[in-house]
Amino acid sequence: MSSSQSPQEAPASLPSPWPESPVLRAAYRARAAAEELAPLPRAVKDDALLAIADALVVRTKEIVEANAEDVERARAAGTSETVIDRLTLTRERVAAIAADVRDVAGLPDPVGEVVRGSTLPNGLDLRQVRVPLGVVGIIYEARPNVTVDAAALCLKSGNAVLLRGSSSAYSSNLALVSVLRDAVGGAGLPADAVQLVPGESRESVRELMRARGMVDVLIPRGGASLIRTVVEESTVPVIETGTGNCHVYVDAQADLAMAVEVLINSKAQRPSVCNSAETLLVHQDIAQEFLPLALDALAEAGVTVHGDERVLALAEQAGTKATVVPATMEDWETEYLSYDIAAAVVDSLDAAVRHIRMWSSGHTEAIVTSSQPSARRFTQLVDSAAVAVNASTRFTDGGQFGFGAEIGISTQKLHARGPMGLPELTSTKYVVTGDGHVRG
Amino acid sequence: MSSSQSPQEAPASLPSPWPESPVLRAAYRARAAAEELAPLPRAVKDDALLAIADALVVRTKEIVEANAEDVERARAAGTSETVIDRLTLTRERVAAIAADVRDVAGLPDPVGEVVRGSTLPNGLDLRQVRVPLGVVGIIYEARPNVTVDAAALCLKSGNAVLLRGSSSAYSSNLALVSVLRDAVGGAGLPADAVQLVPGESRESVRELMRARGMVDVLIPRGGASLIRTVVEESTVPVIETGTGNCHVYVDAQADLAMAVEVLINSKAQRPSVCNSAETLLVHQDIAQEFLPLALDALAEAGVTVHGDERVLALAEQAGTKATVVPATMEDWETEYLSYDIAAAVVDSLDAAVRHIRMWSSGHTEAIVTSSQPSARRFTQLVDSAAVAVNASTRFTDGGQFGFGAEIGISTQKLHARGPMGLPELTSTKYVVTGDGHVRG
Repeated sequence: MSSSQSPQEAPASLPSPWPESPVLRAAYRARAAAEELAPLPRAVKDDALLAIADALVVRTKEIVEANAEDVERARAAGTSETVIDRLTLTRERVAAIAADVRDVAGLPDPVGEVVRGSTLPNGLDLRQVRVPLGVVGIIYEARPNVTVDAAALCLKSGNAVLLRGSSSAYSSNLALVSVLRDAVGGAGLPADAVQLVPGESRESVRELMRARGMVDVLIPRGGASLIRTVVEESTVPVIETGTGNCHVYVDAQADLAMAVEVLINSKAQRPSVCNSAETLLVHQDIAQEFLPLALDALAEAGVTVHGDERVLALAEQAGTKATVVPATMEDWETEYLSYDIAAAVVDSLDAAVRHIRMWSSGHTEAIVTSSQPSARRFTQLVDSAAVAVNASTRFTDGGQFGFGAEIGISTQKLHARGPMGLPELTSTKYVVTGDGHVRG
Repeated sequence: MSSSQSPQEAPASLPSPWPESPVLRAAYRARAAAEELAPLPRAVKDDALLAIADALVVRTKEIVEANAEDVERARAAGTSETVIDRLTLTRERVAAIAADVRDVAGLPDPVGEVVRGSTLPNGLDLRQVRVPLGVVGIIYEARPNVTVDAAALCLKSGNAVLLRGSSSAYSSNLALVSVLRDAVGGAGLPADAVQLVPGESRESVRELMRARGMVDVLIPRGGASLIRTVVEESTVPVIETGTGNCHVYVDAQADLAMAVEVLINSKAQRPSVCNSAETLLVHQDIAQEFLPLALDALAEAGVTVHGDERVLALAEQAGTKATVVPATMEDWETEYLSYDIAAAVVDSLDAAVRHIRMWSSGHTEAIVTSSQPSARRFTQLVDSAAVAVNASTRFTDGGQFGFGAEIGISTQKLHARGPMGLPELTSTKYVVTGDGHVRG
């Protein structure tokens, strides 16, 4: 026997395949599952998704009962009704979630798409092909529908998913993931493609953030402090999502009725979501005419206005019924997520752009204008994930954009920006094919 | 006067525009420059690139003299000749660098490309458009050509660049950046689009890594320890580049002469680069026939073989003139970058894939095969940035792929994978255009 070692032997220098940490064990199993998922054709993945949808409907009772435990605990803890509403699952809501899974099954499979391809001058064939990312970790709050949505999108794109939901939805998630795993396994796919991250402590999040090489990407969904923590501490690549300090700018030339409608829809159609507007900017040339209309409409929608000096002056002059309070510097950077809006009069379109550059979170900004040069300049200069011209900020959404369900809205520039659908859950690889080509 | 504050006032809650840290000051200036660069049309950027190329040629003497100081210091410090060769600039090399800049000017502008677009069912027009990333930070070793390459690629793609080169190339970089900034300024663009990160200490790298929000991406180029540090410590998003533990797998059915040629080219054409091969895997059915040929060819190329038991046995049996030493577990994970190769006999294509999954750095793996099913299975199952079929690993290169110069080769899956050209230096934004559309 020589002293050489076969590469087939278990390498002592690598972490053991069964590390002590349950989180890393889950990640290992997810990685193995991801290797099985990657080459699967669309039909196999779609069958698993349809099996999930069926199972959710069949096992609704079990899911709703488990959810009731979470809701009861949340009530006892004095949780706000808004949060309890997000947490609650009913028969109808489970049916809607199942329908969403069927919709994902109907979407095209991003895996295998040839992103670019050519024959190089030396005759080599070059193809850049979409492949799954591998293992996707999602850290999210008490919204059990995210458990199913995220699992469906990850499976469809050939990824294994590690779900780290809120401890306040633990019973719901346990029941949902049990349904998901049974359906996935029953469809002949590895059940470990869908796993709840074990443990309810912060420590399990920390372990997930350090699992570089095991987890390919972490997507934190939820509050700003959670997202900041993950961004600061994770060695696993992160996609930052969510915060939306969105602006509506009304240009010097604008259809006033349209501007009011876009403003009210952007602010008040659903104020609790990231694509709702938080600041109104009005060109000084139109302020005197527009603001009285806008303030009355905002008042009617129940919105409190935090105005700068010029807004306050015009409000007083117009005798509006709106509640207008003085804005402080903090208002310009606040994502209210409530029936509040900051408002300022600006000297020019460029001043509006400067304001947005300084304060925006880079989610969505809208301009209302009838001037083509203004529309062009605003879309060129504003550097946010989405820029809307004569349209509500509320359209920045995977479903509205036609991507099917979304895994989140990225506010960073790397990898994905804006609503993330299935292609954003993939990477690519180059396939280079020759006839024995060598480099000279 | 009301107590409200105008958004135009300098906000006390934001970091001052002139922070104490020179690195952050540079980042602030880069951000301002990036805002100017973003909307510039191609012709303006190309003019600046041509001005840079001209200036490099005109000011060659000054550059070569500054470089001579670095080379002298490196010699005095006993630096290896390989490193000194990389560091050295001659008249010819400066001319070649200038020619590369002209080539970048000739490449298409990625900014403004519509990546996808459609009219949504409600009539909204949706366009996803490429935009610059903003501020790109490059951390690299003693290769002054990278200073110019990186600046040219960043400018072409509308980005400002913060260059953090090695302190051992400080004089060269100072001279080069002076030439670059003068040319950029002379062409009417902001000179701050190209900056050397002040300070030669590790602290300046650390500050760069913490400049989240100011710097949009950090690309570390160089040794494994530098890259690991940046990946671990940076809160700025990172693109990991470089390490190439590349494999050549010779399948059961393969043209033996082609296999030898691809192997020798992959290993020995330029062993010091990341796309050279480090491990040979041979299917057991062809090992007896192929290995004697391969070992002789490797011997001729001056390559030492680190073999597993089966390779050692076959080498002894064949009486090869090659130097074959027993492989240890460490060899399977080593990126030699030298005239060394690890070699193992594997039971099957799937065993080769398992070996690659366990040990590869995910850069490039090649298969030599005359079997179509083998080629298909290998390209499906191997999860690396590039998979070559009957071609050398050495083709994984931005220049070879036709991308023009490259800013690095990404071995991560997020944002960019494989050789990164101009499109990889961009993000996108969605432009949504309507006629007053609101969400129902």
